[in-house]
Amino acid sequence: MIHILLLLSIFTFSAHSAVQDFCVADVKGPESPAGYSCKPATIVTVDDFVSTGLRASGNLSNIIKAAVTPAFAAQLPGVNGLGISIARLDLAPGGVVPMHTHPGGSELLLVTQGFIKAGFISSANAVYVKTLQKGDLMVFPQGLLHFQVNAGGVTAVAFASFSSATPGLQILDFALFANDLPSSLVEATTFLDDATVKKLKAVLGGTG
Amino acid sequence: MIHILLLLSIFTFSAHSAVQDFCVADVKGPESPAGYSCKPATIVTVDDFVSTGLRASGNLSNIIKAAVTPAFAAQLPGVNGLGISIARLDLAPGGVVPMHTHPGGSELLLVTQGFIKAGFISSANAVYVKTLQKGDLMVFPQGLLHFQVNAGGVTAVAFASFSSATPGLQILDFALFANDLPSSLVEATTFLDDATVKKLKAVLGGTG
Amino acid sequence: MIHILLLLSIFTFSAHSAVQDFCVADVKGPESPAGYSCKPATIVTVDDFVSTGLRASGNLSNIIKAAVTPAFAAQLPGVNGLGISIARLDLAPGGVVPMHTHPGGSELLLVTQGFIKAGFISSANAVYVKTLQKGDLMVFPQGLLHFQVNAGGVTAVAFASFSSATPGLQILDFALFANDLPSSLVEATTFLDDATVKKLKAVLGGTG
Amino acid sequence: MIHILLLLSIFTFSAHSAVQDFCVADVKGPESPAGYSCKPATIVTVDDFVSTGLRASGNLSNIIKAAVTPAFAAQLPGVNGLGISIARLDLAPGGVVPMHTHPGGSELLLVTQGFIKAGFISSANAVYVKTLQKGDLMVFPQGLLHFQVNAGGVTAVAFASFSSATPGLQILDFALFANDLPSSLVEATTFLDDATVKKLKAVLGGTG
Amino acid sequence: MIHILLLLSIFTFSAHSAVQDFCVADVKGPESPAGYSCKPATIVTVDDFVSTGLRASGNLSNIIKAAVTPAFAAQLPGVNGLGISIARLDLAPGGVVPMHTHPGGSELLLVTQGFIKAGFISSANAVYVKTLQKGDLMVFPQGLLHFQVNAGGVTAVAFASFSSATPGLQILDFALFANDLPSSLVEATTFLDDATVKKLKAVLGGTG
Amino acid sequence: MIHILLLLSIFTFSAHSAVQDFCVADVKGPESPAGYSCKPATIVTVDDFVSTGLRASGNLSNIIKAAVTPAFAAQLPGVNGLGISIARLDLAPGGVVPMHTHPGGSELLLVTQGFIKAGFISSANAVYVKTLQKGDLMVFPQGLLHFQVNAGGVTAVAFASFSSATPGLQILDFALFANDLPSSLVEATTFLDDATVKKLKAVLGGTG
Repeated sequence: MIHILLLLSIFTFSAHSAVQDFCVADVKGPESPAGYSCKPATIVTVDDFVSTGLRASGNLSNIIKAAVTPAFAAQLPGVNGLGISIARLDLAPGGVVPMHTHPGGSELLLVTQGFIKAGFISSANAVYVKTLQKGDLMVFPQGLLHFQVNAGGVTAVAFASFSSATPGLQILDFALFANDLPSSLVEATTFLDDATVKKLKAVLGGTG
Repeated sequence: MIHILLLLSIFTFSAHSAVQDFCVADVKGPESPAGYSCKPATIVTVDDFVSTGLRASGNLSNIIKAAVTPAFAAQLPGVNGLGISIARLDLAPGGVVPMHTHPGGSELLLVTQGFIKAGFISSANAVYVKTLQKGDLMVFPQGLLHFQVNAGGVTAVAFASFSSATPGLQILDFALFANDLPSSLVEATTFLDDATVKKLKAVLGGTG
Repeated sequence: MIHILLLLSIFTFSAHSAVQDFCVADVKGPESPAGYSCKPATIVTVDDFVSTGLRASGNLSNIIKAAVTPAFAAQLPGVNGLGISIARLDLAPGGVVPMHTHPGGSELLLVTQGFIKAGFISSANAVYVKTLQKGDLMVFPQGLLHFQVNAGGVTAVAFASFSSATPGLQILDFALFANDLPSSLVEATTFLDDATVKKLKAVLGGTG
Repeated sequence: MIHILLLLSIFTFSAHSAVQDFCVADVKGPESPAGYSCKPATIVTVDDFVSTGLRASGNLSNIIKAAVTPAFAAQLPGVNGLGISIARLDLAPGGVVPMHTHPGGSELLLVTQGFIKAGFISSANAVYVKTLQKGDLMVFPQGLLHFQVNAGGVTAVAFASFSSATPGLQILDFALFANDLPSSLVEATTFLDDATVKKLKAVLGGTG
Repeated sequence: MIHILLLLSIFTFSAHSAVQDFCVADVKGPESPAGYSCKPATIVTVDDFVSTGLRASGNLSNIIKAAVTPAFAAQLPGVNGLGISIARLDLAPGGVVPMHTHPGGSELLLVTQGFIKAGFISSANAVYVKTLQKGDLMVFPQGLLHFQVNAGGVTAVAFASFSSATPGLQILDFALFANDLPSSLVEATTFLDDATVKKLKAVLGGTG
Repeated sequence: MIHILLLLSIFTFSAHSAVQDFCVADVKGPESPAGYSCKPATIVTVDDFVSTGLRASGNLSNIIKAAVTPAFAAQLPGVNGLGISIARLDLAPGGVVPMHTHPGGSELLLVTQGFIKAGFISSANAVYVKTLQKGDLMVFPQGLLHFQVNAGGVTAVAFASFSSATPGLQILDFALFANDLPSSLVEATTFLDDATVKKLKAVLGGTG
């Protein structure tokens, strides 16, 4: 018994070295450019590292017949600071994840059900498109426009891993049409005509 | 037509900026601490970003009833330099992924079939264990010992994403017993007795 | 004299430590995810660190009345590996830099002549727009859609610094309409109608 | 209208993912090695990303006939965490920016008026000097001694971009002579004689 | 005197740029993934950058005849955010630092007294072992299993530098046997038999 | 035996994942901003990770009575890409390491013999000086001017660890006086008088 105590006494410092191993997100604390503040290690439990929120599909009763359910640092606090996160993607037949980018990370898509046609466009305007089936993977490099569409007659499911705990998501149509960016600026910077811009602003709830 | 040419002429520089967007691995070229050399962009195709090699289970007819099939930069060249990769894990009933670490990245495990009991141990020797079902996620912070075991009567499947294109894999028993590390050193540094070390060296093909 | 030699002999190792201070791009050598290969230090001259290519305006005789002249690592080899680069922007009256992103870096715009209305849209679809005059600065965080338009009756000039030696440039309309991405996919993923897509593909030289 | 709500409901998570896109500096909050704390996104405005403080020259009525006006994270909170910042440099005829380093970042100098002779010295003691005119650029790799002097008969203006939001600035003469570093230590470590050190300490307000 | 004030007035901004040069750990403040919060620069003293705690050997009266005394960010606040730290290692004759990893950094071991046999095992299960004497160095790449044993008849001393201010320390036997990880899981994931696991749990204070 | 083969077959992929664990410097291969090229793993031996070159003092018969012996990536190839390196410092009585910076890394100094007075100066021109004895440590943040002088009557020895495999070394007097930087520029940018500059250029072998 004395031996144990002696042995433990040597290395116990490791329990006092606070910033190490992980930094579970304290979403109420101050944030830094590196992520959320860390919860004290003493109140961290296994559930901070586990998510059960992606078991089921999101609601597909919408015009794009798609649902994205994220497990980023805000939802899965254990990934904070670790440079990884994930999101579940459900696509009913005819479903579409519209053209979008992740400003903060690269994506690795894994199809687990059905068929998905996915693609991205490079800075050199080259197009990379492929139809994926269950078990297939596709990489989307950071910041590039990409999309996914259901390519079969059944609901498709996929999981998108990211190289960041907070990769972000900028959906093209929402960025252009779902806010108060003046129509004249949208038109001048996209070459779209006024009617098209006004129509999409109406559909997506934008103003101006 | 002239308009097009004029417009294109302004921005064509982007096609000449070589190191940008992605760096698809040229596994024959020189490697650097940042990863493999880049294939010339002109010969990159969509297949460099797609993997179909994880559709099927690996061979489970082995003593641990498990198979790990990686899609790291060596197998999926499009992830090179992007800080992400993935591996497929198959576990027959009774199957085990033995205690191991990934020295180069954190892991995010997604169960897609069956039940898996997974856990990791922190530097402070705290244990975090959970039984996961289909759709569940668990995070394993970089470099910490962790394991997965089948926790149901059916074959389990999972996909492990990593925060590195080359996370590495150090399996504890292989590191200790499957090489020529002298038994005396193993015993002195692990507190295992000679008979145990010799037996495991015999099973795993180690010498010394 | 002996003193000098003795003194020098101690510290001369620094001349032999190759990867240090800078890594001037050898654009013919192999590339890595970290950038271009380094020129041997012995053939590096001050001109590798200097650019005179941004003295004059680019050609503004095009439909967007704009020119972008980059000094990225491909044009200014001294910035390779240093996490910084720059581009000159000229905008005739009525000129526009269309909606675009830089997948690889954040931008800091400095207006040096005239007036520019600039803006960006966040992942949360919030709009940040401002009219800038000579001496004003505006930040565009990495990967977010942004634009610049001439906001005065005179030619405007600006310099955009980047937090990367190769920030990339993805121009929205070029990505959507100046390649062979099938019209049906563009329409499905942008909610634009077929006539609009076909018209812009025709203008920008796209097919499909 | 219902469509809009349904569509929005899917992707609204992005507004709740706090650490993403940007981290505007809250200069009153706790700092971390990665920078200032982030302002809540709800109170961020476009003015956090815009600086008008560099429109005018700094005061040149001083012995070096020079002024440096920074827009680092402390002055331009939008650059916090983005790895970029800028400073304005004004040099009257005969003006000098004395020998200095930026410990935290590389610099890219852009001359916008007049003529500037600039240079840096490498770890191998190689000298890189060039006279720049309007529109010219020069790179100064991180941490190396460099300087700028007016090389014409008119006031020169330049803007220095940095690869860090807080690059720092260590001016050689201030470091050596404008504090209480004992003269004996200055002399022992610079080979300067006592009279020189005492004189410069007197000029620059140093003691000891 | 006026000159001095004028001169100083130009560059005084540098004193107000808070996040720069260093971020001395405030171990009471919130932590981020990048490390501890920064102490205000005004209360930082030279003692924040100096440690005298490694002058003497740790207590060697324990079963492994070894002591590890760390100077990580928690003990030496000046290293916070700087990517470096150190620990002192004392090994009596027969002493052993058991098999362990540092999940957060690479190690560079310097022997300053006596003889130490040290080794590490790669992901490919290759063994790298060497006996070191005073003045010798050995590198242990991040996250890989390694060990040190006294290889002479006298007490050995060494200093281990790390590429992180908080490299962490996971000691294999403590991770497996000094906590409540169920014996059945230890056995299933290490191939050790029940008697061995139970014995080591008893020695090291583990349960279950 | 069959069991062994089956077991090994599952995980052998790890031997084929090339960029992982370490990247031992191939000093003849192309360099990248991230460091030297990697030697093929098949020809790496333990000696790539071990240095015996720091056992003995460097030559102290010089005017500064000091010697610096580096073990950077060029001398100790195993540290390449690992963000750590070391140098040995010997200081005879009266010996001095002149004012210098490491542009590429922070330093952690460990005194192993004698007494050393060491100090650094911050960007805010604050001075941090301390006299260290055997076993004491001092941190020098990246890029800041610092120095070491023997503070006792005996030869002092110290080891400086760095947070980079190639931290660089810029010695102030060498940068100013040991090259062809014109005296007039040195004088204009340091406030030193012509006689002082000419004298030190003569001593240190500079011209111009």
